[in-house]
This record gives sequence, C-alpha cells and structure tokens, in this order.
Amino acid sequence: MARIEPTPRTTVRRRPTRGAYDRETVEAILDEGFLCNVAVVIEGRPLVLPTSYARDGEWLYLHGARNNAMLRAALQGEACISVTLLDGLVLARSVLHHSMNYRSVVLFGQGEEITAPEQKFAAMRSIVEQIIPGRWEDARLPNDAEVEATLVIRFPIDECSAKIRTGPPVDDAADMSLPVWAGVLPTRPAWRTPEPDPQMPPGVALPDYVAKLMD
Amino acid sequence: MARIEPTPRTTVRRRPTRGAYDRETVEAILDEGFLCNVAVVIEGRPLVLPTSYARDGEWLYLHGARNNAMLRAALQGEACISVTLLDGLVLARSVLHHSMNYRSVVLFGQGEEITAPEQKFAAMRSIVEQIIPGRWEDARLPNDAEVEATLVIRFPIDECSAKIRTGPPVDDAADMSLPVWAGVLPTRPAWRTPEPDPQMPPGVALPDYVAKLMD
Repeated sequence: MARIEPTPRTTVRRRPTRGAYDRETVEAILDEGFLCNVAVVIEGRPLVLPTSYARDGEWLYLHGARNNAMLRAALQGEACISVTLLDGLVLARSVLHHSMNYRSVVLFGQGEEITAPEQKFAAMRSIVEQIIPGRWEDARLPNDAEVEATLVIRFPIDECSAKIRTGPPVDDAADMSLPVWAGVLPTRPAWRTPEPDPQMPPGVALPDYVAKLMD
Repeated sequence: MARIEPTPRTTVRRRPTRGAYDRETVEAILDEGFLCNVAVVIEGRPLVLPTSYARDGEWLYLHGARNNAMLRAALQGEACISVTLLDGLVLARSVLHHSMNYRSVVLFGQGEEITAPEQKFAAMRSIVEQIIPGRWEDARLPNDAEVEATLVIRFPIDECSAKIRTGPPVDDAADMSLPVWAGVLPTRPAWRTPEPDPQMPPGVALPDYVAKLMD
C-alpha cells in the first residue's frame, strides 16, 4: 500500500489505532462520499461550510461561484477539508463508551485555481459523476459561459489521514453482564423513491444510473 | 418568530432567499442533527473535525477528552460550527442547475468550559439524548471519574444563521422541454436493522427507543 507520510497535524492522537495513512484507504473514503466540510481562516477567524467535491487521481476538486468567499480564502491560504461517512451508532452498556462507526478523512492544503476551460470542464464532470455516476452524459452539459462563471479549485491529496471505527461496542469488563441492550445501529443506503419533476415532458423514464443508487 | 440578528459573517450571500434568521428554524435543524463539523484556528491554520453535539435551550454542547486539541482551541479562540441535514439530490436538466435539498446551520462563537459536575452530567445527558432519545435512562450512567475525565464546552446559539433549499430543480426556460429525467432523489431514514452485540446476556430485548428510530 502507498503510504502517505503523516505530519504532526494529520497524526491521529485520540485512539491512534484508528488512524490510517495509506492512499488506498483515503481514496476509498473520498470516493464513497460527495459532501465535505471546508474550513478556512478569514481575518484570523475560522469559517466552515459544507459543499460537494470530487476526487480524481491525486486531486480533490471543489467548485462554486466566482465570488465564493470560502473558495477565495482557500486560494489565498490554507484550507482543512473533512469528509465523514457515518456507518452506524454504537450503543455500549455504559454511556461513556457509546460511539459511532465511521470512516473519515481530514486533508490540509492550499487550493489552486483551475483556469483552462477544458480542465475546468473535466473537473465539473468529476464532481457530477462523484455524486451520480452516469448523470453527466445524460444532462445538458455546461456551455462556455457556464464554465467561465464557475470557480474550480483543486487540492493535492497529500497532507491527510483517515480515521476509522468499526465493530461492536467496547465496554469495561465490569459492565459486560449488565442487562442493557448493546450493539450497532447501522446506517441505511441513502435514498428513497425518486420524485419526478412534474414539469417533465411525458415519457421520460427514470434512468438506470438513478435506479442503481437505490439498491 | 424570534429573530436572530444577522452579522456580516452569518448573512447568506449566495442565494440570499435561502437564508433564515429565526431561532425556531435554527433550533429545529440543530435538534434533528447530531453530527457537526467544528472548525478552529491553530497557529493561524484551519482545523475542522466532525463530532457529536447537543442543543439544549440557547446553548450548543460539545464534549471530548480533556486534551482534545480542537476543543482546547475553541476555548481559547473562536470556533465555527456547521450542521448539515441532506434532504435529497436535485437533478436538473442542465448540469449547472444540479443541486441538493438541505437544511444547514452555521454558528460562530467561543467555547466556555463547563466545570460544575452536575452541569457536565446534564450536558453529557443532552448529547446522548440528542442522538438516541431514551438511551440515557437505560445505559449505565457516568460515574464521577468518567465525568471528571470528560471535557464539556458550550457555545451560545447567538451568532448563527440557517440556509435551506427545498423543492424540485429550477432549470433555464430553454432547457425545460429537454427529454432529460429531472426531479429529486430524497434521502431515506438513516438506520438499518440493529446488530445486537453477541456478548449480551440472553433475553435482552431491543429497546423501544431504538426500534422507534427505524420508523
């Protein structure tokens, strides 16, 4: 496995055995999610906002409006990006050992603006395809003005680490015989029945790539 | 409705009609979630990490280990806390108008440590009850040492705003007749079948408060 060199900031200190520092693990988590939280510093104060992203190769892409303050700050200084996949609630016998099963990535880096239209187009494609694989080829693609109006930035997937918890609760030995229900409440697949736009012309079938998301 | 005075940082600038500045809306979003992302500034650089929280009255509570660097930074300076509830994917006819339905809150503030054991105990209760209402009374409660080992901090729910998107896609008029499936893919309730800890003594039934989460 390709190791990602930990730095002081990416070294998992709380429960260090949950830390992972290999590219395969980080990329698998990034590929399964599509929402991240991006933190930046503006005038010395923190700002964090949720947004969609894509992972393509060794880069993580964000996009937004040209005057997006969070993206602008990530171009001028450092950003910290957090992606969390919640896998379940962990119910322990004691309150203190309650936990969650999760897979998360934290990444640090400064953003770099993508300016070449064909590279922006490709990054915009990767963001759509990260969320709904297959959608890009089906929808009306961005025209030149829409590409121009979009700010696209990328971060190297370089200074980062993963943190993972799996499995049943871990209770103190003295609590193991307590008659308290203990176990994991796993998360479900994310989506319910699609709601078609009533303004669609008749005869447009639900695409396979949407139906597939509901399996 | 009780208005929360917007500040320059909490004023929604991108799509301002999605912004909400009343306490009822902010509290309803905070009450439905239980995971937040907390951003702080450490040595001039941003750090954001996911963690659980509770809303109780006009306060938002976080907890962690005594030496938790993120919580420590939130006590010494400002934090920005983001809570996002994803309600669905919005598939528009054009790529550019793809969106998500969501309800989110962003809150700014400096943390204040809770030191009185009975107040810490109450805050720990509110965090457990935020995630699984009913669990606190059933599990083994924290003892004095466990309360002592936990760092609990609170933030006033004061400088904050909500941002909400609902409804079907909004496409350009020229795209409305395109034969592209458009609509919303709503999110599902979160949980699958509980997985009991195999080490439970026999005869411990699934509690009603867990079964209720799966409705």
